Amino acid sequence: MNMPQPEEMCLLTDLYELTMAQSYFEEGHNEQATFSLFIRKYPPHRGFFVSCGLEDVLRYLESFRFSTGAVDRLYRAGIFSDRFLEYLKGLRFTGEVRAIPEGRLFFVNQPVLEVTAPIIEAQIIETFIINQVNLQSLIATKAARCVHAARGRRMVDFSLRRTQGIDAGMKVARASYIAGFASTSNVLAGATYGIPLAGTMAHSYISSYEHEIDAFRAFVRGFSERSILLIDTYDTVAGAQKAVEVAREMAARGQHLRGVRIDSGDLAALGFEVRRILDAAGFHEAQIVGSGGLDEFDLEELSQVGAPYDAYGVGTRMGVSGDAPWTDMAYKLVRYNGRPVLKLSSGKVSLPDAKQVFRFSEAGRMHHDVIALHQEETEGGEPLLERVMADGQILGRLPRLAEIRERFLDEFGRLDDRYKTIRDPAAYPVEVSAKLQSLTEELRHQVAAEELEPVRQDRELGES
Amino acid sequence: MNMPQPEEMCLLTDLYELTMAQSYFEEGHNEQATFSLFIRKYPPHRGFFVSCGLEDVLRYLESFRFSTGAVDRLYRAGIFSDRFLEYLKGLRFTGEVRAIPEGRLFFVNQPVLEVTAPIIEAQIIETFIINQVNLQSLIATKAARCVHAARGRRMVDFSLRRTQGIDAGMKVARASYIAGFASTSNVLAGATYGIPLAGTMAHSYISSYEHEIDAFRAFVRGFSERSILLIDTYDTVAGAQKAVEVAREMAARGQHLRGVRIDSGDLAALGFEVRRILDAAGFHEAQIVGSGGLDEFDLEELSQVGAPYDAYGVGTRMGVSGDAPWTDMAYKLVRYNGRPVLKLSSGKVSLPDAKQVFRFSEAGRMHHDVIALHQEETEGGEPLLERVMADGQILGRLPRLAEIRERFLDEFGRLDDRYKTIRDPAAYPVEVSAKLQSLTEELRHQVAAEELEPVRQDRELGES
Repeated sequence: MNMPQPEEMCLLTDLYELTMAQSYFEEGHNEQATFSLFIRKYPPHRGFFVSCGLEDVLRYLESFRFSTGAVDRLYRAGIFSDRFLEYLKGLRFTGEVRAIPEGRLFFVNQPVLEVTAPIIEAQIIETFIINQVNLQSLIATKAARCVHAARGRRMVDFSLRRTQGIDAGMKVARASYIAGFASTSNVLAGATYGIPLAGTMAHSYISSYEHEIDAFRAFVRGFSERSILLIDTYDTVAGAQKAVEVAREMAARGQHLRGVRIDSGDLAALGFEVRRILDAAGFHEAQIVGSGGLDEFDLEELSQVGAPYDAYGVGTRMGVSGDAPWTDMAYKLVRYNGRPVLKLSSGKVSLPDAKQVFRFSEAGRMHHDVIALHQEETEGGEPLLERVMADGQILGRLPRLAEIRERFLDEFGRLDDRYKTIRDPAAYPVEVSAKLQSLTEELRHQVAAEELEPVRQDRELGES
Repeated sequence: MNMPQPEEMCLLTDLYELTMAQSYFEEGHNEQATFSLFIRKYPPHRGFFVSCGLEDVLRYLESFRFSTGAVDRLYRAGIFSDRFLEYLKGLRFTGEVRAIPEGRLFFVNQPVLEVTAPIIEAQIIETFIINQVNLQSLIATKAARCVHAARGRRMVDFSLRRTQGIDAGMKVARASYIAGFASTSNVLAGATYGIPLAGTMAHSYISSYEHEIDAFRAFVRGFSERSILLIDTYDTVAGAQKAVEVAREMAARGQHLRGVRIDSGDLAALGFEVRRILDAAGFHEAQIVGSGGLDEFDLEELSQVGAPYDAYGVGTRMGVSGDAPWTDMAYKLVRYNGRPVLKLSSGKVSLPDAKQVFRFSEAGRMHHDVIALHQEETEGGEPLLERVMADGQILGRLPRLAEIRERFLDEFGRLDDRYKTIRDPAAYPVEVSAKLQSLTEELRHQVAAEELEPVRQDRELGES
């Protein structure tokens, strides 16, 4: 099993970050640069994003260095100059990071993070930063949608087996917990992050016994009070009746069956039928857990018909953000050596210069945001980007996971429902300040004049 | 940055694997079990899968153990018995693995891997096995579709920044290389797996200079012969003309510009225009690389119009398998203690018992496959599952990555094009042997009789 070791993390980057770095180095082109990390457009049905991944970025930056072993491996690639490789050995991240804290909401075109550092340092870290913040914000956003659609039902992360790899399995557990999930099946994530664990049995447990009811009996002998019996291996209704039989046997011993899980079929109809069977036998306290390929669209349908589930296990479709498995998150140079810069590529115009985002509230509800220049003053808006790293060192104490989760739940509660609907949400108002707008226009004209004019002349000459 | 350490990998599992294991342990229910790993249905437009991920599975199994630290963490969860935790400390994987080798094709319902071991061992490893083989086969399949659609153009993996985490970034580089990609931008994957590296510059490099042409000149000073200039930061045609200017300056110094890259806009139209500009200036050897949100559907369109690209950089959509970011891969108990077993859950019937897959060829072309019982004899079919682990030890030498890639390219070449079309491919014929069919039917009746009959009687009584 090849897992990147801590001293190899510096190599987890795109080759071009290093070729550009060598060119900057050889050219003595290493002034202060500011890069903005932002998402250009919403994936389908999205109307907000949840900031997630900052802690991993900050820890990565604080420990960033090229080990001798890593430099040796670069040497063997035969691409880099000895002088540059020698330089890499002493390279540290010495810059500043400003960011929207984890668990807070952000919207398209808002910088969720800005890095200011000599361009070599700021450039080389691009790949890792996008990799982590894109994934974690994507999943926290998807998980928040699931939590919203489930209307208060307890949510459990079941995704580990089908997340895209091991790192994703860990980050999905963390991101979904921030977004309001109650627990995870991922034992290592539980141990690493302090997330409550959940889970009892699989179909293989049932089928390893000759009869379903023998499996139920065996399981409750060991885990009486935490047993959730999986009842759909052969037939959900038959399974529910056997669960009732076992619950009666338990009751006679003074024990309580915690509940049952349904993992396939028409979850709404089966939920009502199983609830009826449990209630008819007097097991009103026995819970029903629903699972099996669920996402926020299914959860909303189940909520709308009032399906009697106490909890949902949500796996694959949340864990890979199935309907939108990526965002177009980009990390763009916005300022170099005191000069604001702009990119014009078709459909990919970005806002120049270092920025701040201000959030305006009314009566405790989120009202609108303004994207402004970093140094702009506004009245009444809360600045969202906080200085979290200076001189390459993390500032202050990193928030605990529970605090991030609280922050999310509080802010999400202050965002109106029309921005959170599962399909076609309304667009939360995000304005661009007048100063930022004029700077953008000014640069657009300047770039057009300097970079495109000669071509137009050439073309006209060519055509005449 | 929290990355799982080797001694923690045993905890990278779903809680229920461990609760089931404790129950098996306490009940003395630990006979030989066989689990089959397979995919039930094709994601949209898929007609084949590429086996990938076996090496990681085998290395994981060979080193599988619960460290004292891991057991301590389980102890703190407060779920498990002391006796069971003590037992875990001595647990090793002692079983057998049979698998379709990496790089070979497989199809729906075929076991790509079968594990036979005492059920505790075979159960606990489920989560990791699915996690790795699902991801890697998913991506190898997606990458193979891209390679097929690009009709011989050189393919470069650019996905690292938007893969779902770090592990995925590494595995995508490996899987796409197996499927015929030529190189990757992922430096660590290059160093770890010996994959050729590719990449030169980003838009930020260009915009850090006051003028685009200054950036081009600076870059070729350092990397003359491997320079691919990115020409779409402001305007692709203007960029191409500046690239020509720089190429002329290089020619005067006896150097050659390797090529240009276009990362946005109408790639087909721009490709033709840029080719015309390069050719008109006599730079016929300068290559054009296309990139920017490409997948097999785009590549096929570009191929169909004969867009003059020499290579494509393919990132996000391949790296997350954007149109189908998961498969329904499952790991099902098919035999326990000598008894073939079957699951009936709605829509999820599985084939019972240990199996073999036979591949029949005609005139060197793949003709059809037969899924049979493990011990069945067939005439003329090549058995696909090989015994790769016995008594918990890897058998023989693991193939090198280049060998796996060769194996894939050879077999993929022997699969008719109609099974590889990008949209709605024909279904490659996969039969189920008569013996396996009758066993399935027999078990279906037996299970129906034993597990469902009593319920039907109850219902009739209840309704009368």
